[in-house]
Order: sequence, then C-alpha cells, then structure tokens
Amino acid sequence: MKLNATRAELIEVAKGERPADIYIKNGTVINVYSGELLKHNVAIYKDSIAYLGESEHSIGEQTNVIDATGKYISPGFIESHAHPWVFYNPVSVTGKVLPLGTTTTVNDNLFFYLHMGAKGLKDMIKDLRTLPGSFFWLIRLVSQSDYPKERQWFNQKDIQSLLELDDVLGSAEVTRWPLLYDADPFVLDTVEHVKKLGKVVDSHNAGCNYEKLNAIAASGVNACHEAITTEEALNRLRLGIWTVLRNSSLRPDLPEIIKLITEQKVNTSRVIMTTDGPHPSFIDEEGFVDGLVRKAVELGIDPIQAIQMVTINPATYLRLDEYIGGLAPGRQADVLLLPDLTSFRPEQVIAKGEIVAENGELTTKLPNINWEQYLVREPFTVAKSVIENPDLYRYPHPVPEQPVPVAHFLSTVISKRTDATLPSKNGFIDLSQHEDLVQAFLIDRNGNWVSKALLQNYAKNIDGLATTYNTTTELLVMGKDPKAMAKAAARVHELNGGVVLVDNDEIVLEIPLPLTGMMTTSTSFDTAVTYQNQFLTAMQERGYPFHDILYSLLFLTCDFLPGLRLTPHGLYEVKKDKILDPAVPVAVTERI
Amino acid sequence: MKLNATRAELIEVAKGERPADIYIKNGTVINVYSGELLKHNVAIYKDSIAYLGESEHSIGEQTNVIDATGKYISPGFIESHAHPWVFYNPVSVTGKVLPLGTTTTVNDNLFFYLHMGAKGLKDMIKDLRTLPGSFFWLIRLVSQSDYPKERQWFNQKDIQSLLELDDVLGSAEVTRWPLLYDADPFVLDTVEHVKKLGKVVDSHNAGCNYEKLNAIAASGVNACHEAITTEEALNRLRLGIWTVLRNSSLRPDLPEIIKLITEQKVNTSRVIMTTDGPHPSFIDEEGFVDGLVRKAVELGIDPIQAIQMVTINPATYLRLDEYIGGLAPGRQADVLLLPDLTSFRPEQVIAKGEIVAENGELTTKLPNINWEQYLVREPFTVAKSVIENPDLYRYPHPVPEQPVPVAHFLSTVISKRTDATLPSKNGFIDLSQHEDLVQAFLIDRNGNWVSKALLQNYAKNIDGLATTYNTTTELLVMGKDPKAMAKAAARVHELNGGVVLVDNDEIVLEIPLPLTGMMTTSTSFDTAVTYQNQFLTAMQERGYPFHDILYSLLFLTCDFLPGLRLTPHGLYEVKKDKILDPAVPVAVTERI
Repeated sequence: MKLNATRAELIEVAKGERPADIYIKNGTVINVYSGELLKHNVAIYKDSIAYLGESEHSIGEQTNVIDATGKYISPGFIESHAHPWVFYNPVSVTGKVLPLGTTTTVNDNLFFYLHMGAKGLKDMIKDLRTLPGSFFWLIRLVSQSDYPKERQWFNQKDIQSLLELDDVLGSAEVTRWPLLYDADPFVLDTVEHVKKLGKVVDSHNAGCNYEKLNAIAASGVNACHEAITTEEALNRLRLGIWTVLRNSSLRPDLPEIIKLITEQKVNTSRVIMTTDGPHPSFIDEEGFVDGLVRKAVELGIDPIQAIQMVTINPATYLRLDEYIGGLAPGRQADVLLLPDLTSFRPEQVIAKGEIVAENGELTTKLPNINWEQYLVREPFTVAKSVIENPDLYRYPHPVPEQPVPVAHFLSTVISKRTDATLPSKNGFIDLSQHEDLVQAFLIDRNGNWVSKALLQNYAKNIDGLATTYNTTTELLVMGKDPKAMAKAAARVHELNGGVVLVDNDEIVLEIPLPLTGMMTTSTSFDTAVTYQNQFLTAMQERGYPFHDILYSLLFLTCDFLPGLRLTPHGLYEVKKDKILDPAVPVAVTERI
Repeated sequence: MKLNATRAELIEVAKGERPADIYIKNGTVINVYSGELLKHNVAIYKDSIAYLGESEHSIGEQTNVIDATGKYISPGFIESHAHPWVFYNPVSVTGKVLPLGTTTTVNDNLFFYLHMGAKGLKDMIKDLRTLPGSFFWLIRLVSQSDYPKERQWFNQKDIQSLLELDDVLGSAEVTRWPLLYDADPFVLDTVEHVKKLGKVVDSHNAGCNYEKLNAIAASGVNACHEAITTEEALNRLRLGIWTVLRNSSLRPDLPEIIKLITEQKVNTSRVIMTTDGPHPSFIDEEGFVDGLVRKAVELGIDPIQAIQMVTINPATYLRLDEYIGGLAPGRQADVLLLPDLTSFRPEQVIAKGEIVAENGELTTKLPNINWEQYLVREPFTVAKSVIENPDLYRYPHPVPEQPVPVAHFLSTVISKRTDATLPSKNGFIDLSQHEDLVQAFLIDRNGNWVSKALLQNYAKNIDGLATTYNTTTELLVMGKDPKAMAKAAARVHELNGGVVLVDNDEIVLEIPLPLTGMMTTSTSFDTAVTYQNQFLTAMQERGYPFHDILYSLLFLTCDFLPGLRLTPHGLYEVKKDKILDPAVPVAVTERI
C-alpha cells in the first residue's frame, strides 16, 4: 500500500507550510490508538491525513473547512472478510457500503477466479482500482467444492502470482479445513509462500473443536471467523488466532459470541467483527460494518472498543495499520463524521481524501465495468438440447427395496442423512407419496457429469427451479416435475446463468446472473435486493422453510458442511468423507 | 522469520501422532492473546510450540516432561530497542539477558556499521545467527554525530542492501530527528524503502512537542521511545506512534511515564517497554526486560498487561506476532517458567525450543566470535607521535577579552551554553583560576581534524582522560594537564581503543575496548560490569557529579542533545544548529 501524497508534502501541511485540502474542525476524534475521545481537528491533504490537533495553521484559501460541531470523527470502517458476489457485485456493493462508512473491504476472489483464471482476474483487479474506497483481495487456494481437475485450475504458479499482487493481502479461507488439519502439501507450501510475502492466511474452521484447532493453529493460519459460540471464540483467541466475530445474514451470531467480551472480559485487541458476505436485503436493512458496531454497542460493548474492532484491529491483523484503521498523520484519509455513538450512520464519508458520501447517499461516481471481458469460461458448453430433456431430471431407482440416502435439512445450510425406502415407477423414483421430498441435480456446464440427490424439508412444492447460484456455479436443478425442471434449466442456459423458477409450464421468476452465474451486472445495489426478495418470497411460498435462500443454495453444493452435499463428485457425506452416489456422465443419464 | 520445525511436523505433534521434544505440564499459562491465566500444558517440537491445552497425547518415551506445578508459563520477553555495545558486546549481553528471560533482542547496528561497513556487518550478522535466542537488527540511516563524508559511508546502496536482510526488522532511530522534520530526501526515500519491505521505522524524537510530532508522524515513523513525561507519551500514542516506555540507566523514567496507564487509563495494546541500552551494572542490579516488568507491576500495572507490553505488543509492532510474543501452536518456542507474578525472574528459559538457562545461569554455549575479522577501519591511522604531543591539548586563546563558550553540564547528558571571559597564557587558555573547568578535545582517528571544548560541572579534577567510548568513536581527550592527556591518548592509541585515565604521570585506569572503541571482546558480561564500576568510581572521585559516565561520554560528542556538543565539525550548539568553534586540521593545532 502506498499514499499518493508524498511524505514531504504531508510534513509541510503538518507544519502549516502548505494548505490542507480539507480541514475538519470542532469535532470529537475517536482515537483508536489511545482509546480516547479528543477535541481534535483533522487536516487532510490529497489522499492522506497530515495533521491532528488544535492548530489551524494549515487552513488556506482553498481549504474545504468542514464544521463537525457536535459530531464524532471516526476512522473509516474495515470489512476484513467480504464476499462481493451475493447477487451484488464488487461495484454495486461498494456503492452501497461506502455511504454506510465502510471505506475498506478485503474480498474473496472465489467466483472471479473460477470463471476468469489468473489473467482475467488480474485484469479485473487492475480495473477495480478505480473504485472509490480501498478494495483489497484474498486469494483462494481451493474452491468450496472439489471437482475434477480442480488442482490444475488452482495451480501453484497462478496462485502464487496472484498472491504477489499489491492488491492482495493474503490467502482466503480454506473452507475444506481438513486440508490444513491433514497437512496437505500444496496448501502448506502456499501458506509458507504467503508468510514469506508478509501477508496473512485467513481460515474457516467451522465446527473445529479445541483439540483440532491446535493443529489448525500450527498450520499457520492467522484469522478465523467461524466461531458460533463464546467457547469457540475463546478457543481461537487463546490459540493465537485473530478472532473475527461474525454477524451475517446466514449466521447473525453476535448476540451470542459477543459474550466473549461482555462476560469473558478478554483482551479485545485481537478481536475483529465481520459481516461475512450477507445477502443484499440484510445489508439494506441492518447495514454493513456500521451495523456490526451498532449491534455490538446495543449488546453492551463500549463504543470506542466496538469501533476499534472494525478499524485498528483489522488493520493491524492485515498489517496495514500504518495506512488505515486510525486517524493520524501519514494515514490514508478514510474519515467518517458520525452524529452520535449509537446509530453509527455517517453523515459524511471521506475515502482516500475524497468526500464520497453525504447523508447516506453516494456523491462520487462508480466505474462502468464490462465484466464480460475478463471471463475465460464459456457459460455453457453443454448443448441446450441436452439439458432441456426432461429425462435428465428423473432419479433412477431400479431396486425399490434398496434404501436411498436423503438430505434432510435441519436449518438453512445444515442437513442430516436419513435413508428412505422409496417406491419406484418404470425404474425411476416415485415421489408421488412423498410430498416433502424433491429431486435435485447438479449438472456440469460442460456436460460431462451429473450428480443427484433427494432433499427433504427444503422446498417441497417446487415444480422446477434451475440456478447457477451455488458454490460450484454449475447448473443446479431441483423440483418435482421433470418437465418444469427442464424448462427452468433451458432458460438459465439461455440467460448464461441465473435463477429461473417454473410452475407447471410457466416461468414465474427469472433472475439473470451473467457474471459467473452468481452476480448481476447492475451497478445498482437495489437490483440485487429486489431480486433476492422476489426469490425468497417465491421459495417460501413453495415451502422453503428457512430465512436465507441464497446461502441455502450456495452451500447445498459445497463439500464442507454437515451432512449430505450435492457435489461435482456425487452425493457426498461430509463427516465420513464418502461419496454415497457418484456423479455419472450426462450421456449415461440420458440413455437411461 | 522462519521456523525449523515444519508445519506438517507441528500438526502431527498437535494431533498426538508425533512425540513432543519438551512437554511442560501442570503450570499456568499467561495467555497474552486473551489476557487470561489458564491451566494449560505446552508441547514443544524442535524450535516451535505445537500444542497448548490439556491433552497429554504428545508425550512420548523421549519427551522431556517438565513439571511446572505452581509456576507461570510466559512467552519469552522481547527487547525491541537494544544497544548491544555499552562496554558489553552482542555475545556477552546475550549471555547475561537470556537467563533473565529476554529471548529476543532487536539491536542497533551503529558502531558495527561505522567500523565494519556493509560487508563486515553482514558477515558478523551471519555469524551471530549462532547465538542462542533471537537476535535481530535495526539499521541506522545516519550516525549520531555528523562527520565529513558521512553520507558516503551511509550510502543508499549499502543501507538498502542491509535493510533487505532477513535478520533486519527495519530502520533504527534517527537521533538527528530534524532530518525527518525537515523532510530530508535521503531519509524519506529510505523510509519508503523500509515500508515497501514491510519493515518498521524506529525513531527518536527527544523533546519534540506535540505540534512538531505531527510532522514526524507524517514522515512515516512507527515507534518512539523518547517520551519522558506522561504528556509526551500520550502525544505519541495519540498520533499513531507505537509508544515505547523507557526505563534505562540514563533515564529511569518508568515511575513517571507509567502514569500513561495508571492515570490516563489508555488502551495499552500499542504500548511497549524498553531498557534502551542500559549500562552494564544497571542490568546487573536491576535486570533487563524482566526488570521493566517487575518495576511496572510494582507501579500498579496488572501483571498480564505488563507482560503483554514486552511480548505480544512489541511482536505485533515488529510484525513478528505470528512467530514470537505469545504461546500458541506454530510459534517459536520461547518460553519462561516464572515462580510468581512479582519477581519475574525465570527459573527456566527456553529459547527456540532449547533450554538455555536455569535458575539464572546460562546452560548453553555462547559462540566464540573473532570480532577483528569484520573490522575494515584501522583503529588509528594518525601517528602515535602526533597524539602524544602535549601541545595538541592546549586551547588557543589569543584574545583574552573575547568570551569563550563553555558547555555547562546540568545533568548526565544535558548541557547549557555559558560564555566565560578567561585569562590567557602564552596564547593559550589559562584554567588555573577556574577549577571547575576542563578542556576537551575530539581528535579524528585518521588525524585530519580536531575539535575542542571547555566543560563545566563535568569532572573538574581530571588530569588526563582519553577514550574512544563516545558516539563518534573518535579519540576524546579531556583534562587539565596536557601531559597527562597526551599520555592517556597515547595509551588508548596502543590499545586500539578504550579508556585510559592518568593522574599526573601515572596510568590509574585502563580499559581496553578493541571492538569499535566501544566494546570489550570478552564473552563475560561481568568484565563489562567491573570496568564500568571502576570507571564510574574513578570519575566520581575526580569530581564527576552524575550517575552514568558511559552515557555522559557517549552523548558529549553527539549532535542532537541540548546544548553544546563536541562534534567532528567543531563545538556545536544544537538548538541553533550552529558551529561555534569549528574543527581545525590536526596539523594546524600542532603548529600552534
């Protein structure tokens, strides 16, 4: 990271020998270093802070003097673990969260890399440097669902070259954490490479107990955001892992895990908060990092401490504390004017010395990105004729006495295996007596393989749903009616990715997601909110019993959450690391 | 930094699949991350910690099981700002402080660089890797007293190549801090280079007020240890500078500046403590970093917080917190067994997984270093005959009516200018009526120049003292009797550096300091203590009124402390940045 202002210029402004561009006076600075509230003014030059104190000698004729009487002056908020791909995209989410005071995000590259490879991703990263605010990246070492030839795509050369970029702060969470626990050589070699670069190793160790977490700590990870109980949070902190408290749409756990501080009274300098990629309407309603601070203070945390957990603490974890995370000379000028220490809704947001938002409205331009130019994967190479054949969506069941594994959903993303003995009709499963079951198929977009599953307590009244919105970005098709499923699938094929819901023979919802099959290309965040609300409502009307359809779909096809998962290798039982029903070539399925 | 144990090995030990080398059980771990005391055991493999918890599954037949019942288990202490050259040398001070629990020191390279240049220093740094414990370096950008052609010696190429070494954690304090304040291009360029390397910029801003400190912060410094009042400490902390509280032999300021915490109640995560190169007997009597912790706790600091200020806090400042500063899997095994939380005198010290000390005694070997091999400067190129000429030690005073500037010492290192009208005899100053004055000369070891000064309230009864122990390492000669001065100087010349005190015609004290003129070459720390005590006693007997003769001499020739200084450019008034009496060629002086 580097400032645009030279240090010589900043020194001159600090000494009053060069006028400041912006001078904020009469406010109360939230000093995250000392933990104090101080009556200090702030002088800004170019993209940087030059001075903090009482002197007004840097006010010149051209200086924009901002009166902050009665207001608090805070460093910009940092989201150290962002997923900029939940229907929204990097541009639209930035346009949304900047006015909420989040001036720095550190982003997961997963779907971009899956569809762009190293070259396309690098080009995109370069173009996104024109975004207002600071947009950094973490680099995945593996996908969230193993697939044939994954390691060829996630090869050492490409991964290492990405890790070396200045925009990249380290490696991203390895959701398949047994790779760390079992000392996978590729992963450990890459961890060493990251450390040699002086960067950080993010991690994801959901459900990992204290004993196992010892091995994870030994593997070299720096941070984990997967604690869902106070004890799990304590375990991470005690083992030297930066402890990132999450309050996301999927897991709004802050009321529980904040007890790490309110009850356990730990040292908070290595505690951070994250939103962990909430779905669009969660951000719309609850806010982004500002919402974390608001919630934490509601839950009894001291406001300065809450702000430290989203400013200087993540900046220190990321080894950027000499550039961001606090208000001091020589820091990047990411500055918020807050009306109070309860709402944390900034009245003015300055990022890199530019006023980018006022009263919740963006006042700067977002870049126009032609996303298509970076994509190297064809959206679909499988012929439309193949996937619009209803026969593809029949579940072969030649021996009715043989029990079939069923993924019974206990919550939005967690399922358990229940084996069911089901009737058969013409060699296929007959669900007519099992209203609570739907079929699901995951189809390779290149037409090489198809996996299948039966889902219980998921969305029992769907005729046909097809979507690329899942962590494989392959074509996920589910429902009870093969014809409706085929119709939905065909339409997603035409859209080059998206969500299509079909009732009987009618398309009732259509969401184009041409950017990797996960994202809209709109710069409007509201588009993502509207789509998500329509989708959730439609699914709940058809029996979906949970609150977060996007994360339900995302993780239905992952390979790291309990219990049964629909993956490119087949139906997978995660804890046993066992494929129960392998994927088969699409052609074989057709033949049946 | 890198561990010797592989992460795969550490993971195996954590899982109980490979036996630990050392297993410490039944103790109470001081967890600096969470700020808790925990009943945890610690498993060590090779140089690293592999496990922290209750499981004993890594105890094998060969495992050295240490019973820590009733004891506290602490991370090794870190001295982030050490000067390994106060009569002692890097080897002897390490042998002293390791048994006191300081397992990591970050060291000033000043005198090594002055006498070895880049090549010799690199060779020495490499050889010192055999020292037990962790020995890091900070690299000076300038000396402590400007001299002709300084910038050629401290050239960009050599400085940058040193900064790039793995053993080097950043740039060392710039005592001449106006270079930062006035945006010296060489210094600012080097600061940027340091930052690009991901390393730290140490600084020294003695007496710098809050307003000026803004410019210093803007210049990019990361830490400062020069606060001598609570307000100065607050200033640093508030401006985003890691605030290093000093308790040294020269400035035992902790009782005052600890009020930063006990009274101001600031956040302490960016507060560190340092001993800042105390003289040998101070270490012998008060301890090293252990003494800081002891003193801090005596002064009312919570023991865990005090330990954090010498473990995880400096490790985080140095960006080594994933390797040192705490007890967790994947960290270097620097571990202390403490009997209590009041004395902080370790009963056992483990550094890099090796038991290096027990009950205050070193149990490992120190390397035998042939220091001479690294030195590239001849000790003296000026002929002995030149400096043993008493005429060199006469202070020309052709116009008696003209007042002469006098450095009147107010304390160990601070002087003020007082102009005196003095009688003259044969064209030279006549001090016979001025018992409280002595003459002082600083003579270039190459015989090119000589500077002179008159000192008041310093050591009024000295006949002749000569020493290379001063920050220029040139030959400093002082006293009232030119013959005695000449004799002392000649003997120091023979010794290739050191201290010689002469009464009348008799050498009464002789301390050889062949290593850069500052250090003994003995591996025994006691040698340094003995020499220092002898020297201080002898000086006090001859009228020296202060407590720290080594720092008095060190800074007599510096160019950054108020008020008059005897420098290679001449008698220098620091605050006015003015040479009052320029250095002259030695030959000219001879001629007079």
